[in-house]
Amino acid sequence: MIGKLNHVAIVVPDLDAATKTYRDVLGAKVSEPQTLPAHGVTVVFVLLDNTKVELLLPYGENSPIQAFLDKNPSGGIHHVCYEVKDIIAARDKLKASGARVLGNGEPKIGAHDKPVLFLHPKDFIGTLVELEQA
Amino acid sequence: MIGKLNHVAIVVPDLDAATKTYRDVLGAKVSEPQTLPAHGVTVVFVLLDNTKVELLLPYGENSPIQAFLDKNPSGGIHHVCYEVKDIIAARDKLKASGARVLGNGEPKIGAHDKPVLFLHPKDFIGTLVELEQA
Repeated sequence: MIGKLNHVAIVVPDLDAATKTYRDVLGAKVSEPQTLPAHGVTVVFVLLDNTKVELLLPYGENSPIQAFLDKNPSGGIHHVCYEVKDIIAARDKLKASGARVLGNGEPKIGAHDKPVLFLHPKDFIGTLVELEQA
Repeated sequence: MIGKLNHVAIVVPDLDAATKTYRDVLGAKVSEPQTLPAHGVTVVFVLLDNTKVELLLPYGENSPIQAFLDKNPSGGIHHVCYEVKDIIAARDKLKASGARVLGNGEPKIGAHDKPVLFLHPKDFIGTLVELEQA
């Protein structure tokens, strides 16, 4: 079912400093910051040769990543995102296996303008998993 | 400097259950478990289309991942591993920029029989980073 690792998301307390760490210290290609108000984040994409790292800073008052940053003030890995071909088929198979889909169970349009779902960390070894229809 | 994401490492409390989650629930290809006494882990490789997830269970009395599991009994993401072409050049550049290399600063032979180094999470946004010479 899962195909590629689409990205690893890292929540950061200072987007400028995190971008410099990846660009200047680790020597990676990075994008300009993009604010996505609908997702409550400002993101910088780190473009690796086979996948992406996303550096996420909370944006706005109801950012879904604020609580994580409050708990991890230095930042840290927030989730991994795996690609699937058909997100409805994937969701139905996951629910049938007993895995919990977060929210109302309907895919939302994610930061890449593609349908996404999040799965409960307790069902995936303490790891928040995003699925994105590729 | 960094090229591909070589793997995402997830520490797990039950390797059999974690393997079933990735194989049967997420539908991924998984390897047989391999015990690496020198690294204090038993590992199952999850083979994605563009990279790997490594499911790590502590092995032996001095496993370097036991403390993480004690702190995160449900498991969780432990580190990310980026590939570099020349690990000595990478280390020297990192040290010159003020980043801390863990241990004695000399590369060790990692789980894939290639030279690796670990970098201090405090210098990389709360994220433990492994570098592997590809």
